[in-house]
Amino acid sequence: MQDSPEIAVLRLGHRPGRDERMTTHVGLTARALGADRVLLAQGAADRRTTIENVTDGFGGPFEVETTDEPNRVLCEWQARIVHLTMYGLPVQEVETEIRSQFEDGMDLLVVVGAEKVQWDVYEAADWNVAVTNQPHSEVASLAVFLDRLFEGDELDREWEDADRVVVPQAEGKRIEEQ
Amino acid sequence: MQDSPEIAVLRLGHRPGRDERMTTHVGLTARALGADRVLLAQGAADRRTTIENVTDGFGGPFEVETTDEPNRVLCEWQARIVHLTMYGLPVQEVETEIRSQFEDGMDLLVVVGAEKVQWDVYEAADWNVAVTNQPHSEVASLAVFLDRLFEGDELDREWEDADRVVVPQAEGKRIEEQ
Repeated sequence: MQDSPEIAVLRLGHRPGRDERMTTHVGLTARALGADRVLLAQGAADRRTTIENVTDGFGGPFEVETTDEPNRVLCEWQARIVHLTMYGLPVQEVETEIRSQFEDGMDLLVVVGAEKVQWDVYEAADWNVAVTNQPHSEVASLAVFLDRLFEGDELDREWEDADRVVVPQAEGKRIEEQ
Repeated sequence: MQDSPEIAVLRLGHRPGRDERMTTHVGLTARALGADRVLLAQGAADRRTTIENVTDGFGGPFEVETTDEPNRVLCEWQARIVHLTMYGLPVQEVETEIRSQFEDGMDLLVVVGAEKVQWDVYEAADWNVAVTNQPHSEVASLAVFLDRLFEGDELDREWEDADRVVVPQAEGKRIEEQ
């Protein structure tokens, strides 16, 4: 992954207790669908462990970090920022432009919030992107955005250093220990 | 929607307290990404109200039901059943076959579980489908599955009887009251 541009996901607004599982799902979705790294708000340290345990078991590379200054991450990000919001432009209208800049080598920071996102995030973003203009789920938006960005290639990704590999089955479960 | 086949989403294994927000996100994702109906376990009655309130505000049609016999829903479903699970066959390999049967008029029940899904669900399913064979999120799997099933057409859906409509913006928020 050294030579290709990076995709990092910034999870804003984690509220301890209330957001634990949503934050976990954001992190695991970022990992499974091709992001390189997720940045979580400081209060989500336990979630970091959960996500890292999945990477230990099922492979990587995938990094998890916590930050107590998400605004600073936004300010200091050197390349492009995508903010997923139901108020933004339809993903189907902007995905080609985003993909083109990513393929030209631009790192991408994908920002997903909880309920309320501060105004400066909308301003910091190069694209405010809506996966439908309907209220639903930051996990769903992230998943659809990544699947479209990579045009499905992320589904065939190979994982390094996996202890466990799921072997696809028409019926039942099969996990091979490596 | 009367003449086209139906897509219903069955949310299994809602644990009150722990699963409230995930179940809400499953329901809202089903609605936003083109399903006609969601069926929730009985304990999720509060979630039903949350989802119905979104439909009241942002439009439909979309139905929410609760069931205390999810196994009966599975047994009595007359057409095709898709179970989303990390142990199943890759979505990219089976989506064409599923779409083809749906377009031929087969109603589709899409089943998503919480942590542990009983064995008979795997057996009842016509397809056990994996959106990657990695652990991540039932919300993410549902979103990617629906977006692929409809090939993006769901993103251009028109909503009926909406009180509020979000007008896409490059920056900022705009909601029009109808």
